[in-house]
Amino acid sequence: MHVIGERINGMFLDVKKGIQNKDKSIIQKIAIDQVKAGATSLDVCVGPASDKPLETMVWLVEGIQEVTDITLCIDSPRFEVMKAGLEACKNPKLINSSKGEEEKLDKYMPLAAEHNASIIGLCINEKGIPKDVNSRVETAALIAMKAMEHGVDTDKLYIDPILMPANVAQQQATIVLEAMSQFKMLSDPPPHIVVGLSNLGQGAKERELLTRTWIVMGVLNGLDAAIMDAADEEMKKAFITAELLMNKAIYSDSYIKAYNASHDHPLK
Amino acid sequence: MHVIGERINGMFLDVKKGIQNKDKSIIQKIAIDQVKAGATSLDVCVGPASDKPLETMVWLVEGIQEVTDITLCIDSPRFEVMKAGLEACKNPKLINSSKGEEEKLDKYMPLAAEHNASIIGLCINEKGIPKDVNSRVETAALIAMKAMEHGVDTDKLYIDPILMPANVAQQQATIVLEAMSQFKMLSDPPPHIVVGLSNLGQGAKERELLTRTWIVMGVLNGLDAAIMDAADEEMKKAFITAELLMNKAIYSDSYIKAYNASHDHPLK
Repeated sequence: MHVIGERINGMFLDVKKGIQNKDKSIIQKIAIDQVKAGATSLDVCVGPASDKPLETMVWLVEGIQEVTDITLCIDSPRFEVMKAGLEACKNPKLINSSKGEEEKLDKYMPLAAEHNASIIGLCINEKGIPKDVNSRVETAALIAMKAMEHGVDTDKLYIDPILMPANVAQQQATIVLEAMSQFKMLSDPPPHIVVGLSNLGQGAKERELLTRTWIVMGVLNGLDAAIMDAADEEMKKAFITAELLMNKAIYSDSYIKAYNASHDHPLK
Repeated sequence: MHVIGERINGMFLDVKKGIQNKDKSIIQKIAIDQVKAGATSLDVCVGPASDKPLETMVWLVEGIQEVTDITLCIDSPRFEVMKAGLEACKNPKLINSSKGEEEKLDKYMPLAAEHNASIIGLCINEKGIPKDVNSRVETAALIAMKAMEHGVDTDKLYIDPILMPANVAQQQATIVLEAMSQFKMLSDPPPHIVVGLSNLGQGAKERELLTRTWIVMGVLNGLDAAIMDAADEEMKKAFITAELLMNKAIYSDSYIKAYNASHDHPLK
């Protein structure tokens, strides 16, 4: 599983404090902890913490790459902030994200190609989040087509089918799974499949149980990346075990330890 | 999920003691506890606890149905013990089990029809446990065909694809899942799918985690019955949540409590 650590986001109070006090040690500590916990990328999102998102994004990227050379997942809804983040970034890069609209894809795919970056394409089209399997697959197909058209290798493409909160859109959990099982046929090599895990359990009492259960179903249907707290040990156990049962690792009694050892990314 | 409580089995020490001391209160207490914990059937197996399996089976069945009218799952490899168990049983009946061999099916399916009993057919043929998807499906198809031939409604048929220990037969976990997804096409109404959950984690250090993870995948692929300890709360949470995510129950914040309330079987 490609674990994109979600913690460096201005919506978290510690990150907000780090940004507002220009204290990069706070940010660097979180980055180090996420990498130690097994993150293979770090999401970097200014969020609501600053009214100068462009400068803050550059400051975050520069601060984080002082401590790790792990992939940075530049996360902004604003094109110029995305561009500035990518330009500041010397590490491998992942764009988070482009909507699955033709106009957006025609801007973001060339940006990905220019920076040799991976990119997350969201299954959101002009009408919003598709509600059925077919329109999700259609949107994903447009994303894959646009990647190829603009010279982005499909093994650098991550498609996000958009998980929705189970407490308000219960049937979407399986619609997403069905759509995912078709994504792998969209290109060769197939695109990766990523979700923002925290959406599913939003507002639910059994939040962790719901999410931990869904990720197992996700792995069975091709999920290979997740935006999550890399330090969530129970969630990690769930997907490590699901991947083991799908023969993606060789069984040993200490398969969890073996997984963690093989995902030990060096810090600077 | 049809939960077949596995606890009344002479291989457990308390049951063995109950059998050997002819103390039916021990057996009845376990039966009551399993029903209270949400079992929808109780497996009844003499196992290695007695050298008079026929008499002991009858004694177990009679003792248990003094305290509950829940389905009893008569579990014996010996035909005459099975027959005696069924004859003693006034509750709804489930035969556990017939192998998927023509000769066995031609004996057990008529027995099921005669007693209006449900029956578990094992995906085990003359050569043993099939190792690939196709031979598992072929064996299941023979079981379904023999059920129909002998007048057993396919909604009374439970097919067990045979889970194997992940630590020695790792790739069987997904082969079983793939086979299961085809079982539902074998008849109309489709057969139920049952597994003995404890096999998967046998001898493994992370036994519970492996089993809890597999059952979620199982539910996604049509599993609707499991032989398990009905009092295993973590296992129950896993399949209740998996079924919720598949829209088999309506979401509420207290969906686990709601499931338990709706599976409250009255005791005598």
